Amino acid sequence: MKVPVSPLAPAQFPAMPAMTGVSFAAHACGIRYKDRDDLLLMVLPAGTTAAGVFTRSKCPSAPVDWCRQALEDGKHRARAVLINAGNANAFTGSAGMASVERTVKKAAEVIGCDPSHVFVSSTGTIGEDLPDERITKNLETVFAKAMTEGEAGRDWKSAAAAIMTTDTFPKGATRTAEIDGVTVTLNGIAKGSGMIAPDMATMLSYVVTDAAIGADALTAVLRKATDRTFNCITVDSDTSTSDTLMLFATGSAGNKPVKDADDKRLKGFKTALEDLLRDLSHQVVRDGEGASKFVEIRVTGADGNKAARRVGLSIANSPLVKTAIAGEDANWGRIVAAIGKAGEKAERDKLAISVGGVTIAAKGRAVEGYDEAPVAAHMKGTDILIEVDLNIGKGKATVWTCDLTHGYIDINGSYRS
Amino acid sequence: MKVPVSPLAPAQFPAMPAMTGVSFAAHACGIRYKDRDDLLLMVLPAGTTAAGVFTRSKCPSAPVDWCRQALEDGKHRARAVLINAGNANAFTGSAGMASVERTVKKAAEVIGCDPSHVFVSSTGTIGEDLPDERITKNLETVFAKAMTEGEAGRDWKSAAAAIMTTDTFPKGATRTAEIDGVTVTLNGIAKGSGMIAPDMATMLSYVVTDAAIGADALTAVLRKATDRTFNCITVDSDTSTSDTLMLFATGSAGNKPVKDADDKRLKGFKTALEDLLRDLSHQVVRDGEGASKFVEIRVTGADGNKAARRVGLSIANSPLVKTAIAGEDANWGRIVAAIGKAGEKAERDKLAISVGGVTIAAKGRAVEGYDEAPVAAHMKGTDILIEVDLNIGKGKATVWTCDLTHGYIDINGSYRS
Repeated sequence: MKVPVSPLAPAQFPAMPAMTGVSFAAHACGIRYKDRDDLLLMVLPAGTTAAGVFTRSKCPSAPVDWCRQALEDGKHRARAVLINAGNANAFTGSAGMASVERTVKKAAEVIGCDPSHVFVSSTGTIGEDLPDERITKNLETVFAKAMTEGEAGRDWKSAAAAIMTTDTFPKGATRTAEIDGVTVTLNGIAKGSGMIAPDMATMLSYVVTDAAIGADALTAVLRKATDRTFNCITVDSDTSTSDTLMLFATGSAGNKPVKDADDKRLKGFKTALEDLLRDLSHQVVRDGEGASKFVEIRVTGADGNKAARRVGLSIANSPLVKTAIAGEDANWGRIVAAIGKAGEKAERDKLAISVGGVTIAAKGRAVEGYDEAPVAAHMKGTDILIEVDLNIGKGKATVWTCDLTHGYIDINGSYRS
Repeated sequence: MKVPVSPLAPAQFPAMPAMTGVSFAAHACGIRYKDRDDLLLMVLPAGTTAAGVFTRSKCPSAPVDWCRQALEDGKHRARAVLINAGNANAFTGSAGMASVERTVKKAAEVIGCDPSHVFVSSTGTIGEDLPDERITKNLETVFAKAMTEGEAGRDWKSAAAAIMTTDTFPKGATRTAEIDGVTVTLNGIAKGSGMIAPDMATMLSYVVTDAAIGADALTAVLRKATDRTFNCITVDSDTSTSDTLMLFATGSAGNKPVKDADDKRLKGFKTALEDLLRDLSHQVVRDGEGASKFVEIRVTGADGNKAARRVGLSIANSPLVKTAIAGEDANWGRIVAAIGKAGEKAERDKLAISVGGVTIAAKGRAVEGYDEAPVAAHMKGTDILIEVDLNIGKGKATVWTCDLTHGYIDINGSYRS
């Protein structure tokens, strides 16, 4: 089934600057797909520090297990990332890890680095053994390509395209920040939660900065920024076995290395990172399966920020809210129901709800005679804003989702073949 | 939009015996609908004990607040239940409770009972004031009807039909049990989670038995049976502001009253009640919006029964699993993902999954060369069985759901008008 480009896609891929010592090569290994690249190698310069956040699934894929362990064993250093599409190497029993280990061993030999500095991700079918020999036999060629490709080897758009599975557009974002007066760059790519039978929905994202930042600080800033961005999006509430977000710092910008996450010199970097991750996470939502509307849900007045996020995600994951939005209906009754089921503190008679900036319910009831015309016009647009004020505390959070349409059923309800 | 009768509907409404002192009357009050009954009065004999379980929503409707309080104030006694369709009297601010109080006061006057022995439920639009005068002005007529209607006043099928909103078939079930050698009857009706814009999805169910059972015991047995039945079903994970399940015991069967829930004489009654509630709850699922398949998910080997139910509901609520079932695809990868995201203890390499009785994954990987033909045939049927063995403990639970189809989007994504 050919899925058209999402109507919510950004107008164009951003211009992303090359980064010293960072190069890519894609290759068609025939893992599952024919006649398309299905392997991406990203080579990073020696001395690069690494941080990662991974799926909370209790049944993670073998590559996720590997990455977690490698970060620890290799003291958060990285030289390469290897990503394959077509097979997720998930739920493959002990064969899964054996397959990862063979792949990593070969990559480490070819690159000349420690295996714990090689990170791997797999996305695609789950429950089928990864034919890793199709990867390993091509690794020398792929590495040579990465080292010699010149322009192509530094083309982030091609890299983003190479890790697409059912995404309808490549996802990239770039930002700059100052550390001690030195300009540093952050480049990130992502693949989204597109899923088409029999592939798993998997979110993968890799961000590289030329800043010099120690591993502990890198990990702390990544976790915090993720919490406010990728952990605040949802397409259909389903968590993949393979979700991976990694941040690498090469140090080539030449700033004096920052070791402490609380160091004030990181202020601008933190803002830039959060902004970049928000951008990428929104692109993932904008490529949600069947999405016709991008929805921002702002919750304020909650009993703490965590409560606010849970209320927001309860609204964002409600099939009734999502189908109402698809139907361009500002059905705030369904929003109230979703708030009520979140399990967080809420007082019915203090609730206020706005859609498109117009307050349609307050003090626990409909606002009499509110102007329906601007609300109806807002619902017909592609970018929907829902604001909920619980009016009981100071907690706040913003989450993002898309609507639930026939397209979602078409994509996910079709037979595997 | 005219919705056809669910393909999963039972062949017929069961023959339900009349019960001494229990009578009904339905009436067209014009609350919202035209030319159809929208009010049901159920009259219960003096001395009837009552128990109830209600929505866990933090934003319950005014009638739910009333019922909880009335049970306490009236020492768990009941003389009448009044149910209206067309307006849920939810999210109506302080006007909501005032409306309930006016209705109850009038009903208590007409019937000649304490207001705390009158229970009310409302289902329909939320956020609009209930025009309670349309109910109160008809109450004398309705009560007179209930007292004189003869056959019609004891017709459970008509009662079940009168509380339907967007249900496609009336839901009823009947069982008998023995207490001390006396045969007692249980009759129950329900309306399902059918929801059509702008009505709220609301589950209402009322069970009457002629057994003599004290209020404390009645409450305890109802809670336990609900936990294994209505609390184990899900259509779309959305919880209504108005969900209500009440159990009334008239005592007319003449058994020696049972006061203690642990009394061994209640053994048969407990089994019959759980069986009846399971039957009704399954009918609700079978009338799930757009449902084309009824799905039973049995989880065993979990770290406790609660963990088992959470894993089961995580699978049952997964849009990816539900769309796969709609597509007749035994996509166990999505089942693994749903198990992983439940947050409960699971060991990937111990998991086993069966579909239609055929083990398709075990020890954390696909069973090589399993016979796909019977699995494919099973997926084409209307009743789907998924079994998951976590193989780490003794916890078990069974949950029920339906698939997610284009019908759901059609019903819930249409404009309000």
